[in-house]
Amino acid sequence: MDEFNFINSIKQRTYRQPTIVKGINDDAAVFRQSYMDTVTAVDTFVEEVHFSRQTMSNEDIGYRVLAANISDMAAMGAIPAYYMISIVIPNHWTESDLQSIYQGMNKLASLHQMDLIGGDTVLGDQLIISVTIIGFVEKNKARYRSAMKDKDILFATGTLGDSSAGLHLLLNREKEVANGDYLIYRHQHPTPRVAFARAIQSLERAALNDVSDGIANEANELAEASHLTAYIDFEQLPKHEDLDQFSDVEQRKFILAGGEDFELIGAVAEKDWEKVQQAAEETNTAVTKVGYVIDNEQTNGKAFLIEDGVAARLPKEGYTHRSK
Amino acid sequence: MDEFNFINSIKQRTYRQPTIVKGINDDAAVFRQSYMDTVTAVDTFVEEVHFSRQTMSNEDIGYRVLAANISDMAAMGAIPAYYMISIVIPNHWTESDLQSIYQGMNKLASLHQMDLIGGDTVLGDQLIISVTIIGFVEKNKARYRSAMKDKDILFATGTLGDSSAGLHLLLNREKEVANGDYLIYRHQHPTPRVAFARAIQSLERAALNDVSDGIANEANELAEASHLTAYIDFEQLPKHEDLDQFSDVEQRKFILAGGEDFELIGAVAEKDWEKVQQAAEETNTAVTKVGYVIDNEQTNGKAFLIEDGVAARLPKEGYTHRSK
Repeated sequence: MDEFNFINSIKQRTYRQPTIVKGINDDAAVFRQSYMDTVTAVDTFVEEVHFSRQTMSNEDIGYRVLAANISDMAAMGAIPAYYMISIVIPNHWTESDLQSIYQGMNKLASLHQMDLIGGDTVLGDQLIISVTIIGFVEKNKARYRSAMKDKDILFATGTLGDSSAGLHLLLNREKEVANGDYLIYRHQHPTPRVAFARAIQSLERAALNDVSDGIANEANELAEASHLTAYIDFEQLPKHEDLDQFSDVEQRKFILAGGEDFELIGAVAEKDWEKVQQAAEETNTAVTKVGYVIDNEQTNGKAFLIEDGVAARLPKEGYTHRSK
Repeated sequence: MDEFNFINSIKQRTYRQPTIVKGINDDAAVFRQSYMDTVTAVDTFVEEVHFSRQTMSNEDIGYRVLAANISDMAAMGAIPAYYMISIVIPNHWTESDLQSIYQGMNKLASLHQMDLIGGDTVLGDQLIISVTIIGFVEKNKARYRSAMKDKDILFATGTLGDSSAGLHLLLNREKEVANGDYLIYRHQHPTPRVAFARAIQSLERAALNDVSDGIANEANELAEASHLTAYIDFEQLPKHEDLDQFSDVEQRKFILAGGEDFELIGAVAEKDWEKVQQAAEETNTAVTKVGYVIDNEQTNGKAFLIEDGVAARLPKEGYTHRSK
């Protein structure tokens, strides 16, 4: 594979973002942003650890690694604008397979008017995709995990566990499930909640985190960062009806610990809950109240799960040992 | 290795950059830059391809991967400000080995008042370090390869080929060379030319490229991007006296094709040459005139090497077949 020709083949001919000054073509890219804060993160995906060609097409792989990063922008309340792709390529990957990955990314990028402005391609033993994402948010309006306050309402977007259930179906193809394609689609094409996060941008304060490692983990992260206690009501957690076809144990695992839904969990003041619901409606996003925040010195920094009226410590891994 | 504890161990307690809004601790980092353009790039380094523990300590590896990225900022005329490190870690690497890599990066970062603001750590088969760098440059003052003009002077900083000669010594330890430690040090601790690049910032126009793949390659890149012809005079190329201990063939290879010197090659108008020399003096940087630029439809986009009064096409790889 000729690196120069490959880069040429994936390079955008025109750029979509108004802040672009220089795209791919020099030692670095340049953009100009005078009015908003810049938000940036990097995430790395290893073949057979974070994705597999057994469960996804090359295009899906590209779509999904970028979706995970866009989700980080949503969790900051930011508008995604640019991305850079560093890719480690094993010898057995063909140029057209690689182009499919970039096409998958570009498919999602174009939905968000994002531009590919840089990257690197090197040879190595495993396929590894490292995504740098850059977005913008109004000054002092980035949504931190540490922004929760006492008596806040905790909410979640969409339904939880769909992606894990879809992956489970892909790995256990003998299992017969009605409407299984929906769950599989949710695994392969998650929707980062940028529109919703932007629609609550007018709120003076909101804490946000994206559900990349399961809501149990994210609720704990919010509690830790805010030095408060998060209570999650298991009965209220939004669940897609197709999940009913799995056992209780499986459902529990998918909903609490299922990663990569890329939904948002957030906290807002009670007085703002109505505005959150309006934003949900405007952006056609399901939003469900799933719990609340309290300030209790004994338990701050931790998340709890309420079931049958009883609250128990919710470990980050999401597995609670119920003794009924 | 516990990822959470590891990240905590490498996280900066305080940040050095005034534009920082949020460092490591959330879904993404945030900075605010209202007056300058933002410059960003990503570069990936694979063990045994781009670096080896046989020729470098863990600290050197960290120092060098960051140096390569800072050099990209210098080549844009930008001030490096932030970096994010995505690292793929094989099982056999210990936590303390990894910490040494980050210490090496921090050593160089602190010289430039740079902050580590994000990253990712994942498991994989090979050690792979991907560096995202972010810097700032005055609006419309980024130094592009495409900025050369007819009759410009071509110059280079420092001396060329030192890093390759140092690597050669590391790989061929039986070779006896006086002052070999100097060349080895240059390989392990290159100095990105940020100070010099910033000192010529007042020039209205300058083209810059960093010597990461040998001056033959970079001269061709400048010629291509500017659609002009670059002439390099072999006799004028700056060479450290210690290189005289190598054969003519070796010297030629080191000087023309030797990568990773991280010196700068640039082009300025003749009228600005004196200012370039002043900037060199102010920043204690050697700067040498190495050639010139001409506009010739027949040869534009290409670089030529002048030797003994004869000009021959200089291929990107730097190897010219002399028939004397």
